[in-house]
Amino acid sequence: MPIDTLSACVDRATLRPVNLELLRELSVPNDTKILLLVIDGLGGLPNESGRSELEQADIQHLDRLAQDSLCGLTIPVACGVTPGSGPGHLALFGYDPLRYTVGRGVLEALGVDFDLQPSDIAARGNFCTVDADGRIVDRRAGRIPTAQSAPLCEKLASIKVQGAQVFVEPVRDHRFLLVLRGEGLSDRLTETDPQREGQKPLPVRALAPEAEATARLFNDFVAQAQQMLRDDRPANMLTLRGLAKHPPMPSIAEICKFRAAAIAAYPMYRGLAKLVGMDVLKTGATFPDELETLRKHWDRYDFFFIHFKRADAAGEDGDFQAKIAALEEIDTFIDELHALQADVFMVAGDHSTPAIVRGHSWHPVPFLCHARAFAQADHSEGFNEKACARGILGTFPAREVLSLAMAHAGRLTKYGA
Amino acid sequence: MPIDTLSACVDRATLRPVNLELLRELSVPNDTKILLLVIDGLGGLPNESGRSELEQADIQHLDRLAQDSLCGLTIPVACGVTPGSGPGHLALFGYDPLRYTVGRGVLEALGVDFDLQPSDIAARGNFCTVDADGRIVDRRAGRIPTAQSAPLCEKLASIKVQGAQVFVEPVRDHRFLLVLRGEGLSDRLTETDPQREGQKPLPVRALAPEAEATARLFNDFVAQAQQMLRDDRPANMLTLRGLAKHPPMPSIAEICKFRAAAIAAYPMYRGLAKLVGMDVLKTGATFPDELETLRKHWDRYDFFFIHFKRADAAGEDGDFQAKIAALEEIDTFIDELHALQADVFMVAGDHSTPAIVRGHSWHPVPFLCHARAFAQADHSEGFNEKACARGILGTFPAREVLSLAMAHAGRLTKYGA
Repeated sequence: MPIDTLSACVDRATLRPVNLELLRELSVPNDTKILLLVIDGLGGLPNESGRSELEQADIQHLDRLAQDSLCGLTIPVACGVTPGSGPGHLALFGYDPLRYTVGRGVLEALGVDFDLQPSDIAARGNFCTVDADGRIVDRRAGRIPTAQSAPLCEKLASIKVQGAQVFVEPVRDHRFLLVLRGEGLSDRLTETDPQREGQKPLPVRALAPEAEATARLFNDFVAQAQQMLRDDRPANMLTLRGLAKHPPMPSIAEICKFRAAAIAAYPMYRGLAKLVGMDVLKTGATFPDELETLRKHWDRYDFFFIHFKRADAAGEDGDFQAKIAALEEIDTFIDELHALQADVFMVAGDHSTPAIVRGHSWHPVPFLCHARAFAQADHSEGFNEKACARGILGTFPAREVLSLAMAHAGRLTKYGA
Repeated sequence: MPIDTLSACVDRATLRPVNLELLRELSVPNDTKILLLVIDGLGGLPNESGRSELEQADIQHLDRLAQDSLCGLTIPVACGVTPGSGPGHLALFGYDPLRYTVGRGVLEALGVDFDLQPSDIAARGNFCTVDADGRIVDRRAGRIPTAQSAPLCEKLASIKVQGAQVFVEPVRDHRFLLVLRGEGLSDRLTETDPQREGQKPLPVRALAPEAEATARLFNDFVAQAQQMLRDDRPANMLTLRGLAKHPPMPSIAEICKFRAAAIAAYPMYRGLAKLVGMDVLKTGATFPDELETLRKHWDRYDFFFIHFKRADAAGEDGDFQAKIAALEEIDTFIDELHALQADVFMVAGDHSTPAIVRGHSWHPVPFLCHARAFAQADHSEGFNEKACARGILGTFPAREVLSLAMAHAGRLTKYGA
């Protein structure tokens, strides 16, 4: 192949099927409404019975809705790739999760509702146990309960470093959040967790000259913390991971020219929604609370993201029956959600969390899009992995969900003359 | 996430959904085994009976395996694009064939087991017939048999050019391999074949200043060859195509953190496997020989590529019945391959070679992936074009096959927090 043809191919490969710049160009205001229900960890796998959680669950409302919707399976990140919660949600919000990444420190900050500023550096901290030589003997300090780690966090929060404010917040068990706030901090930093026991925690190193000063601040913090914790057992040391800034993200509200709201009981999902420019609505701890919040704000927004957590938690626990129960629970709310008469009502998952995997997995996730106008006929047999695989949408990247919704909501103009 | 990781992600986003850099980041060692059987030219098309080679063949073992596997159709390069053997295999090995290209000269060198060095320039040569004015009257010199072209190659191998060693090897019929070996050679060169009769062969031209010297060497070779061949009939001239170096390729073994082995009776496929960093195992000329080699080395590797050639050869010959027979032949080995109990056993084709096309074609290729754990149920009706199109994997890029296998083999970690 001649060189010039080859480089044309490489350039062409740099483009994505649908991306935010294209949406920004084509989006137009309208008075239509889009409702996106995310069932966290929705997808599953068959257990010994040969049928998956969705296939075994009595989800008659979802099954009925699927028969009158466009169905398919979404790939959150890429074929074979298991996503964390961040990439899984960003993709459903239209953001290529390989292009837009959220560091672990930032996710922890979002998860405890910490008001992270654009110049802050957040790190995920782990209490650990070291021996007399300073070698790690337990990377999680025996998973000490929050009741034990919270007072330690309070002690650490009193540490002073020159040129930055220090914030330390307990997260859960041995995990905590560390934030440094100051001028000109850089997150081009390495982690201190050596990832295995028998080794000493590593120093924070700068990956670029502009991060040297910030690395010194973190190392100063760690040195003082080590002194402070030396007599504690089992949490006599700490490690830092995922040192990161709030990543710059374009706003979904601005790109799509709509008012977007997020309703989620769990802080991390609220934080992710805030990162992409959604208004986060105050809500309660249960799904009925979220539903009430949705109804209350229905007239004030064009796009709603509403989050249901329990399916993921059950899958993570490896509890097949609890996952079925969670799916049956959310199913009982489908008619109420549908009754709001959104122009586009979508049911999606950020990733699969099959009970037999006991964690997130790479498997494509069932998806349905119910549109009031201009939807291709589908007539899926139901809402599960097999039926959706045969749906009219096929298996497609999750980051295309947003443009699909925008089109069916009459919010995209024609491309080209 | 630190900026450098972010910019790495941005770079990564310029590639295709799954790419080797992402695999490199996510791959982890495991003790699982992956077996990839490539049936060369697997896909076909219906003849006048309305059914394809796979649909007509008695392939009960493949059909049964498909019912218990993930099925789909792979697109080797891009929709509508017919691949050569190089791109077809590179895609199955996880390499984007639009990004990683193997020049024709290099493929010819691999095909005759020539030990190509990284600095060598290889070219595909064709003997041709020119008239008294030097215009080409037959681009293939009447397809002279190898018995006639081999002595000519021996003559040409005696040519000396200043600053490089000359190697000339017969390939088949009117085709031969020319290799120049020397210091600082460049392959940014044009071809001499004008691609039509009635025109004179073109000079080799440099596409960049650093290739000027190499162009002169090739032109010097051609001038001497012309003198040497002038009284020969019909092969009184030659043309050169695909002047290329051994392309730099990352190693699949290093990217995937596994030990990879290739078992193929034909040199070109061994050469392709060697290019991507697989160990090439010594084997015999038949598939039973290859199977014996596989068994012998089973414990020593994590990933095996095993190649079956006859289906492609039958398709190229336009022999529908011979293609059916080839498919039925490989079917008889499926149970033995399956009995090795690979954690992931895949049956794929590098491209379609429908007998009615008498050559490679662009049609998506049947694919199955049998995984011992965490496979979504599929229950395909059989292993053929129509049944696989309805499979749970849908129609997808062949370069995603590797990540799919890696995921099911428990060899990929989670992406993002």
